[in-house]
Amino acid sequence: MNIAENIHPPAAHAAPSLAGMVSLCEAAMRDVNKVILEKMASDVPLIPELAGHLIAAGGKRMRPMLTLMGALAGTTTQGKDDIPDEALYLAAAVEFIHNATLLHDDVIDQSEKRRGRDTANAMWGNEASVLVGDFLFARAFELMVSTGDIEILRMLSSASARITEGEVMQMSMAGAPDSKLEDYLSVITNKTAILFAAAAEAGARVGGASAPICGAMHSYGLALGRAFQICDDALDYGEDSDKMGKNSGDDFYDGKITMPVILAWQDGTAQERDFWTRTLSQQDYQTGDLQTAREILRRHRAVERALAHAKQEAEAAIAALSPLGQSEISSALISGARFAAKRAY
Amino acid sequence: MNIAENIHPPAAHAAPSLAGMVSLCEAAMRDVNKVILEKMASDVPLIPELAGHLIAAGGKRMRPMLTLMGALAGTTTQGKDDIPDEALYLAAAVEFIHNATLLHDDVIDQSEKRRGRDTANAMWGNEASVLVGDFLFARAFELMVSTGDIEILRMLSSASARITEGEVMQMSMAGAPDSKLEDYLSVITNKTAILFAAAAEAGARVGGASAPICGAMHSYGLALGRAFQICDDALDYGEDSDKMGKNSGDDFYDGKITMPVILAWQDGTAQERDFWTRTLSQQDYQTGDLQTAREILRRHRAVERALAHAKQEAEAAIAALSPLGQSEISSALISGARFAAKRAY
Repeated sequence: MNIAENIHPPAAHAAPSLAGMVSLCEAAMRDVNKVILEKMASDVPLIPELAGHLIAAGGKRMRPMLTLMGALAGTTTQGKDDIPDEALYLAAAVEFIHNATLLHDDVIDQSEKRRGRDTANAMWGNEASVLVGDFLFARAFELMVSTGDIEILRMLSSASARITEGEVMQMSMAGAPDSKLEDYLSVITNKTAILFAAAAEAGARVGGASAPICGAMHSYGLALGRAFQICDDALDYGEDSDKMGKNSGDDFYDGKITMPVILAWQDGTAQERDFWTRTLSQQDYQTGDLQTAREILRRHRAVERALAHAKQEAEAAIAALSPLGQSEISSALISGARFAAKRAY
Repeated sequence: MNIAENIHPPAAHAAPSLAGMVSLCEAAMRDVNKVILEKMASDVPLIPELAGHLIAAGGKRMRPMLTLMGALAGTTTQGKDDIPDEALYLAAAVEFIHNATLLHDDVIDQSEKRRGRDTANAMWGNEASVLVGDFLFARAFELMVSTGDIEILRMLSSASARITEGEVMQMSMAGAPDSKLEDYLSVITNKTAILFAAAAEAGARVGGASAPICGAMHSYGLALGRAFQICDDALDYGEDSDKMGKNSGDDFYDGKITMPVILAWQDGTAQERDFWTRTLSQQDYQTGDLQTAREILRRHRAVERALAHAKQEAEAAIAALSPLGQSEISSALISGARFAAKRAY
């Protein structure tokens, strides 16, 4: 899409896209990448090597971008136009926290591919992945400390604890397709949305935003994070998930319980439930099972309904932005929210 | 030993014992245990269950005790006699950091026993151990935040990063008995001593200690940590390590490189070096190998020489205490340092 179209569009017509956020954050993101490289450094060569493999692989950098957008929302309402250094440190910190959890997730899931590349655990072993994850986590706190703002440390240490609570809860739910939808929503809120919320709010705070704008960025991040994770989970059952660099059907083979499966179980026949029990619960897989799973989900429009739920979350994210008023920043955030709920479409 | 003997003894005669520290910290340690239980709580039942298994197993609680001793050194020089709540939170935080690293270590080493009990990973699997370790780490930062002192967060986040650097370095050295002694010392400084130092210094700081006393507690903790780890490693080759609840010879079978092995390699014959290469480097073990390893070490007095090094560190720890002057507190710290270098004797 044309970036020029993205300046002051009527919010209702903002098209789903990350381009507005990417464009507003472009220069600052280069500085964030410098901070990331600098803080990955260690006298122990394996650390930057392994961390670099993961972080260089990229991804969309949603979390640091949210921090920068929060900072922009803060500075512009103060009539400034420069993002403070503290926001760059925080953006790097949230990317470190996120990458630490990815390293540990890949160990836990024994994943071999992430973003289309071999995972760190496949290349360097579980030991190194666990330890370098710990290192990134500790470095994230060092970066946060450098902002000198204890309230930000409170916010992000609490978010970190909730991420792990979400992950443990997800692990406890594995293999149980009769899980409650509210438990799934609690898992994704903790493991994903809380960090989105903290990233956006912390950015606003160091940008000098007023309390209502900090609160708006928090609510925006929270709903956006939920939209993002619901889509990510739903698309694991999509025919084209290979395009995203994921192993298609990973969640299915891991017995991970996500929204489409819960919806299909709730409306399922006895025969369908037997299928989910054999596969997800008993981990007994036969050729063609992934195809069968997709057919059952299609019968119940389960992926479609999950994506509709994601869209609702995205609209909630957009509604939360009202304290920001109409601006290039709010337009970019609105487009970003729609993108999160529609990505890969 | 009789506690009464421990009041104002001439420092030179302070006998090796933890009893003085235990006695001075007894009441406060009960409060620390309350904080630990409270902060282990989570809506996700597996978390307190798993963390409780490890933390309840006890151990000597060296790190929280150091924090409390630091706080005592601070308050008494100010003419106060009560340990502030912040010290209790910090003591719980350092115990959480330590237990997080133990959970991750046991995953990495695939250990089945710790302190004579089944390890968490043996009981709940690696996944849960990795995640609950992450949870404890995050909770530790929440506890530190509650002190409101950003300098303490700086100290302990930096210590946490260095712990993982030490562990990665240790992993990189595995299987290389020709490693340099200075690299081993760097490993144990990072993975163990830095946290001892930070624990003691942070306690002194929240206790209101002067800069020289904070510095003294840091130096004491650093040297004590080295003494403690050198002994722990040396005793893994002792005949009676089973008594300590460790699997005797764990380090040998893991190919972990510790001081006795480095000393024996340096002075070793070609035949002895072949033995270390086959076992530690090539992980090819035969019946009787642990016995042979012990015989080679005995020939070079390698365990004895390592323990002599530990004793030097303990004396350095004691020397660092001079700013504290003679008191019940310094006597207890002196006895504790001697104990660290002589424990299990």
